[in-house]
This record gives sequence, structure tokens and C-alpha cells, in this order.
Amino acid sequence: MSVDLPEPLTEPVAEDLRLETIMGALADPLRLTIVRKLMLESEAYDHSCGWFGFDRPKSSLTHHFKALREAGLIRQRQYGLERRSRLRTEELNARFPGLLDLVAHWEPASSKKKSG
Amino acid sequence: MSVDLPEPLTEPVAEDLRLETIMGALADPLRLTIVRKLMLESEAYDHSCGWFGFDRPKSSLTHHFKALREAGLIRQRQYGLERRSRLRTEELNARFPGLLDLVAHWEPASSKKKSG
Repeated sequence: MSVDLPEPLTEPVAEDLRLETIMGALADPLRLTIVRKLMLESEAYDHSCGWFGFDRPKSSLTHHFKALREAGLIRQRQYGLERRSRLRTEELNARFPGLLDLVAHWEPASSKKKSG
Repeated sequence: MSVDLPEPLTEPVAEDLRLETIMGALADPLRLTIVRKLMLESEAYDHSCGWFGFDRPKSSLTHHFKALREAGLIRQRQYGLERRSRLRTEELNARFPGLLDLVAHWEPASSKKKSG
């Protein structure tokens, strides 16, 4: 079903995605958590910041979501005052097969028995 | 065949490897190049810095190799005045299946037709 959606915010086109940039964007537990949650739990619509349930300042979250968008991992659209996100699953799987599997199997350090 | 090798320099044990740290270490074209070359071209011995043929200051290379070792991607041993490296292939494949395939398929931006 096709619906009218707001235009995506600026993002790299699929052929310009770079592994080193993707790696840099994923070198952070919060960003891995965002991508993993979008991959494993999202429905087929754009998700607002609040959906993730993070206990973080909004400015910090905005920064992390923007980093993921600029690296090409997520697509963001502006719905009124709110930016909502979805994973660029098909493009990522086409360009970097296995990348999302790595993220799917990741778990935060604090959930391990041996917490530091 | 078992031979006596110098002790490895300090490195994280396999179960302490973290995807976010690995990603951070690979968020750099030179480091991707090092890992890729070790993966695709190395023989079954430790390779010195010079083997890679980089036209970079030694201090810069030392820094990048150290970052890869501390993230758990490479093992380094001290041979006299020289540090030599090899990839931790088996441990990486066991902990992060598909990661090395991503690196194997990576190519530097400058080798693409559309160079910026």
C-alpha cells in the first residue's frame, strides 16, 4: 500500500554508503541499541524518538539519530515537530550483507554476567 | 608445527571482544586496509609494519596497529625492535560471524570510479 509520507531528510544515496562510516556510526552502544530495536521490534511505519524509551536528554538522542541518518543506517522524516525513523534494511542488506546480523546478535555489555 | 614465538603484547581475551569497540577500530580506511591485507594476503607468520608498504610516518602506523590490537582485531608480538602482527581470524569468526567478510568486500573510496 502506498501512502503519502513526508520527504526523507537529507541522507546519502545507497551507492554512496561507506563501510568505514557505517562502522563509525555503530561504534557506540546507544546507536547499536537504536538500530537493533528498529531491526527487531519496529512495525512498518516510522518510529518517534519516544518509542525507543530511552532515559536520555532529547538533544543527545537527536544527535545520535542524526549520526545514524548521515551514515545511511536510518531514514528520518519530519512529522510536524517530530522526527521519526526507520531502518534502511533493504539497502543495508544489499550493500553490506551480514552487517545487520552482527547488530542483531549484539548485546549491551551491562547485560552480560561479568559486568564491569 | 609448533615454534617458539615471543609472547603476544597485551590484548583483550576473546570473550571480552566488543562489537562497538571493533566497529570503532574499523571506522578508518587505513585500519580497514590493514585488516583486509592481513586477511587476504598474509602468510602464516607475523608481518612487520614494512610488509604493508604504507607511505606513512612510523608513529602514525604504530598508533593504528595499536588501536587494532587493543580492539582485539590483531595480535602483535615484539621481535627485537620490531612489532609484527597477524589477524585473530579464528576468534573473530567465532565471535562475529560475517565481520571479516564485510572487510574483505570493502574497497577504498579512491579506487571507485566516482572519486571525490
